[in-house]
Amino acid sequence: MSYTILTGDRATGPLHLGHFVGSLRQRVELQHQHNQTVMVADLQGLTDNGNNPQKISANVLNVVADYLAVGIDPHKTTICLQSALPALAELTMYYLNLVSVARLERNPTVKNEIAEKDFARRLPAGFLIYPVSQAADITAFGATHVPVGEDQLPMLEQTNEIVRRFNHIVGQPILTECQPLLSNVGRLPGLDGQGKMSKSRGNAIQLGAGADEVHKAVMSMFTDPGHLNVSDPGRVEGNMVFTYLDAFCEDAALVADLKAHYRRGGLGDVKIKRLLEDCLQSLLEPIRTRRAEFIADKGELTRILQHGTRRAHQVSQQTLQQVKTALGLDFFTLA
Amino acid sequence: MSYTILTGDRATGPLHLGHFVGSLRQRVELQHQHNQTVMVADLQGLTDNGNNPQKISANVLNVVADYLAVGIDPHKTTICLQSALPALAELTMYYLNLVSVARLERNPTVKNEIAEKDFARRLPAGFLIYPVSQAADITAFGATHVPVGEDQLPMLEQTNEIVRRFNHIVGQPILTECQPLLSNVGRLPGLDGQGKMSKSRGNAIQLGAGADEVHKAVMSMFTDPGHLNVSDPGRVEGNMVFTYLDAFCEDAALVADLKAHYRRGGLGDVKIKRLLEDCLQSLLEPIRTRRAEFIADKGELTRILQHGTRRAHQVSQQTLQQVKTALGLDFFTLA
Repeated sequence: MSYTILTGDRATGPLHLGHFVGSLRQRVELQHQHNQTVMVADLQGLTDNGNNPQKISANVLNVVADYLAVGIDPHKTTICLQSALPALAELTMYYLNLVSVARLERNPTVKNEIAEKDFARRLPAGFLIYPVSQAADITAFGATHVPVGEDQLPMLEQTNEIVRRFNHIVGQPILTECQPLLSNVGRLPGLDGQGKMSKSRGNAIQLGAGADEVHKAVMSMFTDPGHLNVSDPGRVEGNMVFTYLDAFCEDAALVADLKAHYRRGGLGDVKIKRLLEDCLQSLLEPIRTRRAEFIADKGELTRILQHGTRRAHQVSQQTLQQVKTALGLDFFTLA
Repeated sequence: MSYTILTGDRATGPLHLGHFVGSLRQRVELQHQHNQTVMVADLQGLTDNGNNPQKISANVLNVVADYLAVGIDPHKTTICLQSALPALAELTMYYLNLVSVARLERNPTVKNEIAEKDFARRLPAGFLIYPVSQAADITAFGATHVPVGEDQLPMLEQTNEIVRRFNHIVGQPILTECQPLLSNVGRLPGLDGQGKMSKSRGNAIQLGAGADEVHKAVMSMFTDPGHLNVSDPGRVEGNMVFTYLDAFCEDAALVADLKAHYRRGGLGDVKIKRLLEDCLQSLLEPIRTRRAEFIADKGELTRILQHGTRRAHQVSQQTLQQVKTALGLDFFTLA
């Protein structure tokens, strides 16, 4: 069974290990069997960076380089740029009339994000309505499945409400409802164990990080503050090194043995950190090399993005055309 | 001095005498000297008709026929369709990030409209943000002047705030501030003297109204309820027949004489109504004829709209391109 999948990332910075574990790794798998579109969401990135557009524009090609470096294959996955697809903005305009302001204000995901970002009275209108823009993204590609974490489920619910409302109003099943493709791995916590890994918290290892950075990051990781001497029994739960070993060490039996040893006492932090560093270095080394090659040729990166965006343009324009026809607003074409 | 003018109408119904007095007449004059774009605002019409898109789609060509019938000349004025211009939706997406939700909620024009329309908790997001969409319309054409009534001044203020904020952020004068072109005539009250003329209140005479309808409408007009006998002195203020004579009778001296006579007593309502009817019939007769000819050839109407929209597309895409370049989001073209 082949799904139509839409996924993507806000272009607010280079991607990091959290993205790798939470989504990129999955996408590399999904692309073999499914019709996958991965979108660089620059417009969505602008919704809380309206005063700092350079932050977004400077990261668009970084994100594309990250995609290619981890193995997202532009021949299998449509890699596209949100701002270059007019249908997404146009669909958003239609959908905005089908959603009440009160409903947007109740969206739990957005509510949490608003609280976290402390916009207060300066909440940009673009941020409040971004679930509608996301509904446009998802429906434009007829996505049947959207990879999300639990915290993003309200966004898909909002999308499906719009889909049902639109289809009801026009009396035809023009738009497609979507389902979540829930990731089986939890979110990777930050190096400091304080919440999720995130650029802005400075607790992330970027995919393009140098070997030295990776070394330093691992060596400074949070373990068990009560584990003072090698001989002391140590805690595995909440110990970031073991959390990361679970995520990145392929030898699960070895990790299980090490956990038991650490709990008994007699296993030093430096040993487990070295193992983790080996895992991360061997994961990141080829990614870093490929990433550097792509970044060195921005012309080629741009062409790859342009190529995928053209394909995405065709699909999204088709959806827009169907929506406009259903609304009776297909008077003529401009071409 | 030639202005760049943007104006238009929501496509919620055929236009009426209120539009004629308030804006259409002006536009016919303005087109000789200025660079004028008149937009059929179907997207804006949808912001409070999301459940009833047929109301909008069914009226797009009616509005174009009204424009042509009153003498708006497609060779002099760019007549275009809002929903067919992707740049307007795209610019709206960028501008939404520059305006806070609180600012939109404080917009006096929108606040009044929300109160009038009694949306309560079902206020559509599209309606709340329509001033941002209007800012996109105005700036897309680089409008220097926008014909408005006093009640619409806050909309232009909001547009200019966005212009200043955008230009400040990108450090370049990309967008143009606009000025109001205040109409020197007040709003035409409805036939019943209750507020402005409006389709939804049923107190309007449409531009395509038949001679019988015009006759009936004038004969049933509100005059002076205290003017029971012809010989009684009558009131001119608040007497709709005189209000309309002021608006539509070209012989101002005659109207002044009639007012004096009516005040003294001895002038019957039927006489002044007959004069008004003559004025309206001779105004509307050629408009009705031309309108019927245009409506009979929807293909030609559509071609005229398409032609103007193509021109508008070029201009609005140019502005969008400048905006995207200033934001650093001009990576490639799709063409």
